[in-house]
Formats: sequence, structure tokens, C-alpha cells
Amino acid sequence: MSRLSSQIAESAEKVNRFIEKVVDIEDEPKLLYRASRQIVDAGGKRLRPFLVLKSCKLVEGREEDAIPTAAALELLHTFTLIHDDIMDQDEKRRGVPTVHTQWGVPIAIVAGDLLFAKVYEAITKYTDPKHVTPKRILQVLKEISEATVTICEGQTMDMMFESKETVSEEEYFEMIKSKTAALFETSARCGGILGGATKRQVDCLGEFGHYSGIAFQVIDDVLGLTADEKVLKKPVGNDIREGKRTLIVVYALEKASESQRKKILGTLGKKDASSEEIGETIELIESLGAIDYAKQLAENYIKKAKKALASFPASEDREDLISLSDLIFARQH
Amino acid sequence: MSRLSSQIAESAEKVNRFIEKVVDIEDEPKLLYRASRQIVDAGGKRLRPFLVLKSCKLVEGREEDAIPTAAALELLHTFTLIHDDIMDQDEKRRGVPTVHTQWGVPIAIVAGDLLFAKVYEAITKYTDPKHVTPKRILQVLKEISEATVTICEGQTMDMMFESKETVSEEEYFEMIKSKTAALFETSARCGGILGGATKRQVDCLGEFGHYSGIAFQVIDDVLGLTADEKVLKKPVGNDIREGKRTLIVVYALEKASESQRKKILGTLGKKDASSEEIGETIELIESLGAIDYAKQLAENYIKKAKKALASFPASEDREDLISLSDLIFARQH
Repeated sequence: MSRLSSQIAESAEKVNRFIEKVVDIEDEPKLLYRASRQIVDAGGKRLRPFLVLKSCKLVEGREEDAIPTAAALELLHTFTLIHDDIMDQDEKRRGVPTVHTQWGVPIAIVAGDLLFAKVYEAITKYTDPKHVTPKRILQVLKEISEATVTICEGQTMDMMFESKETVSEEEYFEMIKSKTAALFETSARCGGILGGATKRQVDCLGEFGHYSGIAFQVIDDVLGLTADEKVLKKPVGNDIREGKRTLIVVYALEKASESQRKKILGTLGKKDASSEEIGETIELIESLGAIDYAKQLAENYIKKAKKALASFPASEDREDLISLSDLIFARQH
Repeated sequence: MSRLSSQIAESAEKVNRFIEKVVDIEDEPKLLYRASRQIVDAGGKRLRPFLVLKSCKLVEGREEDAIPTAAALELLHTFTLIHDDIMDQDEKRRGVPTVHTQWGVPIAIVAGDLLFAKVYEAITKYTDPKHVTPKRILQVLKEISEATVTICEGQTMDMMFESKETVSEEEYFEMIKSKTAALFETSARCGGILGGATKRQVDCLGEFGHYSGIAFQVIDDVLGLTADEKVLKKPVGNDIREGKRTLIVVYALEKASESQRKKILGTLGKKDASSEEIGETIELIESLGAIDYAKQLAENYIKKAKKALASFPASEDREDLISLSDLIFARQH
């Protein structure tokens, strides 16, 4: 295992223990708590918590002061996944049934709401004001609530795009900046704030998170079309069936001839498209250079992310964040 | 207009102005912001914000310091209404279509989520730390997140009861304490905290909110069966159609003969029950003394609420809170 992988595993372990305490599977009503834990327990890379903890350490903060917020941001991420899965009618996530598939839409809605409430409970109840000033804790809560507002806006844009004739690259990037990059940005910023960073340091960390987050989503879109289904743990091509306007689709539609365009639009959003039809459309999209294009853009964003760390003195923690951005680009799921 | 009514109207006005600023109908994506404002703008008595502001004033706090939290608790209440309406498949609320009926379930889910995020944004961004210490602001946020966890638990219990053979009075009260009373309790406590109350004062205010909240829900259940539909602004008897185990139903089932029990259980949860059938069942329930019983219990809780204020010196603000509890009992919608 690489140094980075073992560090991620180690911080995931701490975050998981904290989550198990804050969202206790034995609490009543058990139905609610079990539904809330389903996706948390099914896996996930815990990249956002890692980003919180590393950012805190980079500015010489104490890791333990950032654990509640690191866990809270994973809960926030999970809450959005549970609700998104209802909206997108997805049936699988992390190799297990989505919450609404297993427990029904009403329980899935309230399970997501519970995790959202637990975000704030975790931070307000467990961040030690002896080590982090109440002012800084408040700042963290403000950043998180603003990021969540942004995520809701991004999720709405994503849904609106499904019924839009044309979506531009600019619109796509606006959407993923809200839907995905905002949470990476906030994770890095909050880690910095909890570690006692200066405003300038917090901004640099936020920039790192922002660009890494954009790259993460672009690569996510690539993997959604090209990954091995067993590794992805959800059906390949779902984005096509749901009519998602990913960068890849946006670019392919731009480059396509009239007949190719018709073919792509014919499959896009076709809920009952066969695996063959999806496979053919992915091949066509790939032949138009859309996947290479997306990878190239993601790589550029990773470069920008790394640049944002240039003002920090060289250190092991800075190297680890750089490795994290490489991992975001190179990951297979 | 009575002194109380004009005071409630006045504080509602301030709270509405604040909400219009924090959840701005002109923000993008407009679809999301319009959906989020639909139920807020359709009316509502703003009792929870009033409770926040009055509790703050009772302990000689500044009303303006409590406005963001007062508005936030109305947003929290509205967020739960939007999500509950999806879960209960209700079509009307405050005389207008519910959010999911008008905009679809996905938008209704994210509109609720947005309001929930705005709860924390409102408080962290607009409470002036020059007048309220960060420590007290943090305390308010902690109380609110814990109350929301409790509300999620109560909402789950409420849904679980629908498919349960027997629900006891004790279980009913446990459910409404979580689903409804927690938010009244928190409103009163937060008002006190923001006004600089002692721990003991906060606890007394919380008790007032708690008992008032229980009475509020019991009366709500009564009105759901007996109110004028035009005043109620939603269909009378919905609780019966949805199979809700209100105190009234719980008591009626206890007192009913075998044949009466069969009749009630036959209509309970029957989504397509006719108005006649619902009317007959309500008559039967009433004849068993269940509505009088519920009113009697509500009155007792109002007495307990008033008692919780006894330790505060006599003042106009204390009188107003007492009038508020009388209004909760006597309201027609």
C-alpha cells in the first residue's frame, strides 16, 4: 500500500469510528438509523474527510480538532447521495441497493434529513471550544451551510439540464462547481480554519479543493462511461440513461455530425436503453474524442490545484495533498 | 385586533422581511427558489418565530438579536412541511398545491434541503457576534440540530404507526413530543439563550414551549377532523385517509365496541374513502367522546405550560406568552 493509501485508510478509520458514535445504529427508531447508515457503511473513499484532516495538519493544526468536521462533511456528502439517488431513481450505490430502493422513498427522505441534522450536531457537540475558538467553529458552520446552499443549486441545475436542448461547456462547469467542487473547497477551507490558518492560507486551501473537486467530477463522469462495472459498483452508462449532460456528452454533441447527434440524443435519457445501445453510444462518443478531451481538462485542473499549494512551505503534508490530487485523477472508481 | 394578534402580525412582518432577504426569490436557479418559497409565502401563523422573539424579550434581550433565529426556525418548520407532504402524499397546504404537487418530487426534495441549509446560513451569517457571544450562537445551533434529529425520529414514528395494529396513548405522546413539541421547545429555549437568559430560565422557557407544543399538536389533530375546510385550507379528514394514529383515533379505538372498531379500522388508511364515509367515521369517533377527551388533555397541557412561566416576574411579555398558549388552545385553524 502506498504512503497515501495507508494514510487515507487510517483517517477513514478514525472518521468511521466517530460516525458510528454520532449516528448510532442502535438508536430508535432503528429503522431510521439503519436506513441512514446504509450508504455510509457500504464503503466510500472518505476523500473529503481526508482533505479536511490534511488541510488542518498542513497549517500545523491538531488532527483531533478536525475529526468532528471531517466526519460531518462525509455525512453531508452521504445525505446528498441519498437524496440524489431518489431524484435520479438510481437503484444501486456502492454495490448495495440505494436507500429508497430498500426502504422506500419516505424513509429515504427522512434518513437524508437526519444525516444533514447530524452534520451540525457533530460539529457543535464535539468540537472542543478549549482548542478551537467558538468564533472559528462558527466560521466552519457558516462555510458548510453556504456550501450546502450551493450544492442544492447545482443539483437543481443538473436536473434542469436533463430537459434542456443544448447545454454549453460553460453551463456544465457552473453546475459541477456548485454540485461537486463546493464541497471539496469547503472541506479544505474548514480544515484550514480548524487548524488556525490565516485568511490567505484558507483561501489557498479552498482553491486547491475547488480545482481538485472539478477534476474529481470530470473523472467521475469519465468513469461512469468507461469503468469496469464490478469496480464501479453501479451500472455503467447510467448517466446516459438518465440524460445527464456531462462534459463528455456536451463535447460529443458539439463535435458530432447531424446523424451522430441524432444517435446520441436518441439514447440520451432513454430509461430503457439496452446495454448494447448504451455501449454503441459510448463508443461513438469516445470516437469523437470526448473522453480524451475530458481527461485532458481534468489533468489541467489538477495542475491548477497543485499550483494553489505553492505558497505553503514544502512539507510531507503538502506532498500528501499533491498525491491526493494525483489519486483523484488516476483513480479507477 | 387583540393585543396578541397585532403583536404576532408585527413580528411576522419582520420575520417575513428577513426570510425574503435570506431566501431570495430572484436567486438562481429561479425554479429552486420559487419552489422553496411557495409554502412560506402561502401563509402560516409564524407562531414559532413569535415564541422565539417573545422568549428573548421576556428575559430582557434585544428583539433584533433574535430575528435571524426566529426566521430560521420558521424555515426549519417549512422544510419539514415540504418533506412531510411528499411522504404523506398530501396535495394541498395553506390553500395552495404542495411543493411536490406543483413542481414534482425531485424539486420538492431539494427545495426542502435548501431551506434546511438556509436555517444555518441565516443564523451564522446574520446574528451579530457583537451583541450575542459566539458561544451563545453555537449553543443555539446545537439546540436546533438536536431538535431536528428529534423531529426526524418523530416523523419516522408517525409513519411507522400507520402500519401498526395498535398504538398506545403513550406511544402517541412520545411521537408528538418528537415531531412537534421539540420545535416549540427549541424556539422558546433559543429565544432565551439569545436574550442572555440563565440556564434555569432557558429550562423554564423550554418547558413552556414543550407543553404548548404538545397542546398545539393535539388541537391540530382535533381541527383536522372538525374544522371548516375553507378555514383549514386543506381537506378535512386527511389524517383518517392517511391512517394517522392521532390521540383521537387511539382513544376512539380503545373505547369502541368490536363492531365500531371494525368500522373505524375499515376507513383508517383508506386512501379513496368518500367524504360520506369519512364523515360517518368522524361522527362515530366523536360519539365515543374522543374529541372531547383530546380537548380536555390539550387544556391540561396548556395549564402546565402556564405554570412553567410562574418563576418569571409578572410582566407584559409574560402575559403575552400566556395569551399565546390560550390562542394555541382556542385557534380555529
